[in-house]
Amino acid sequence: LVATICVPDADTAAALEPLVSAASALRVLVWAPKAAAPAGVDAVEFFVPAYQGGVTPSADLALMPHLKVLQVLTAGVDGWLDRLPPGVTLCGARGVHGAGTAELALAGILSHLRQLPRFAAAQQRRQWDRDFTDTLRGRSVLVLGAGDIGQRVAAAARVFDAEVTLVARHPREGVRQLTDLAQLLPSAQIVVLALPSTPETVGLVDAAFLAALPDGALVVNVARGALLVTGALLAELRARRLYAFLDVYETEPLASDDPLWSAPNVVLTPHIGGGTTGWQRAAGRLVHDQVARYLRGEPLANVVTEGY
Amino acid sequence: LVATICVPDADTAAALEPLVSAASALRVLVWAPKAAAPAGVDAVEFFVPAYQGGVTPSADLALMPHLKVLQVLTAGVDGWLDRLPPGVTLCGARGVHGAGTAELALAGILSHLRQLPRFAAAQQRRQWDRDFTDTLRGRSVLVLGAGDIGQRVAAAARVFDAEVTLVARHPREGVRQLTDLAQLLPSAQIVVLALPSTPETVGLVDAAFLAALPDGALVVNVARGALLVTGALLAELRARRLYAFLDVYETEPLASDDPLWSAPNVVLTPHIGGGTTGWQRAAGRLVHDQVARYLRGEPLANVVTEGY
Repeated sequence: LVATICVPDADTAAALEPLVSAASALRVLVWAPKAAAPAGVDAVEFFVPAYQGGVTPSADLALMPHLKVLQVLTAGVDGWLDRLPPGVTLCGARGVHGAGTAELALAGILSHLRQLPRFAAAQQRRQWDRDFTDTLRGRSVLVLGAGDIGQRVAAAARVFDAEVTLVARHPREGVRQLTDLAQLLPSAQIVVLALPSTPETVGLVDAAFLAALPDGALVVNVARGALLVTGALLAELRARRLYAFLDVYETEPLASDDPLWSAPNVVLTPHIGGGTTGWQRAAGRLVHDQVARYLRGEPLANVVTEGY
Repeated sequence: LVATICVPDADTAAALEPLVSAASALRVLVWAPKAAAPAGVDAVEFFVPAYQGGVTPSADLALMPHLKVLQVLTAGVDGWLDRLPPGVTLCGARGVHGAGTAELALAGILSHLRQLPRFAAAQQRRQWDRDFTDTLRGRSVLVLGAGDIGQRVAAAARVFDAEVTLVARHPREGVRQLTDLAQLLPSAQIVVLALPSTPETVGLVDAAFLAALPDGALVVNVARGALLVTGALLAELRARRLYAFLDVYETEPLASDDPLWSAPNVVLTPHIGGGTTGWQRAAGRLVHDQVARYLRGEPLANVVTEGY
């Protein structure tokens, strides 16, 4: 029995080397984004598409009639669910991006509260512009999404004495549900979006959601652009009623004529949440562990849809 | 028996109101910075000098022959220890500034790693400048000081999977000592100064300390300017070998011709660590609780030097 694994780059292939030597029955193909399909692609059982730089189009899966496992390296699996062939198990990359994405949310929150851009400008002017700044202490932070990203944002905010409320699609101990939002939004000074993009969450943050927030609230989106109705947010930003820190957008990359670039009260980053210099190492470890489980016939981790 | 308490402002006096009604034997005087001494100052037993805006000069303590407790609102007590009259107990404000100061350290670290200033500039140019950024994941963070500030910095960094080492003047479980620094510095990618200013710590971060750090390391000072030899740091910054995030300085405010303003690789904030919009509330609670303990004859919290 030979298992054929297809990965997007040499680094990920290198992460499988310990398994190749332990089980000579493993064959590793590399299929880089936009490259032609490698020889032997029809034997692939376990496929790891590239993280970015041109997601492999759906046609590729048709080239793999023996596919059993699709292991994506993104935190979200939107875009894969609806083109998953029957019998294929889809696995996400929970834990690979969580820390980096949560960290970016906290960076955005702290930079906003402590007014780092204002002091950077004062530094340029060589000006000692001492003032009291806001802080997380006692601030009400609403975190939508209680997965790895949301839990980390909550834990870090609590270190600084914030009043954190976690909200998720499925209520559980210590986690409120989306239907409680009407009750929670009016006192939320900071809202962090850390939910996956699903039919339930697309467009969740619309004009009514935003209107329910108190004056001066900060909206942080490190999840998916589709969760937030950009036009509704723009209206609140232009009215200078709310603030936002955005890393993800309805269309990416953001076009150079997008009105967000020049809107007031908003800080934009170009979808850098999960893509950190540390993620590749973590992704390699995940792929190694998953392939090892697959070879031993053990249950896989991070299963989104059970197939085979 | 009437206890006379002297506080720096009406807000702090208001925090004592519940005690005034419960014990009619309490008299509260307000002595604002730079104002003349209030009538009855010679009866003061418990004195709370102002946090900033002109620290009450040492002569004031001579006006209080019955002084038992000096409760400062700063995190550090440097400047008070050497002018404390005999028999007076000095209390610090541990917990009042810790969260805000630790939060600023984390803001500085995350803004540096995730390159927020770079993306702010790209936003100005309407440019989608996507790139992989650094992260706390797996990064070695050395926190000097294991008090409230240091512990919070450590806890938050660990939420994001940093490898944190705490170092303090007095070793204890899970905390290394200053004599271990020679061994710890060569692998420290981030160093956070969260130690009080004492004879042991003044000038601790000198040319030899900095030279022991690896290329590209970030030095964060949210403690006291005296811990760091500015000239030595400037040399490393100008050589573009190290980075720094500074909130405190050897002389404050920083003069407009100070070379730090225009040095490369450094972000400066004007001593905003502890002074947040939330601190006044927290300071009021601390003063309330301490006066309540004093009136009941209970041991005080945050005692730095036991006097009466």
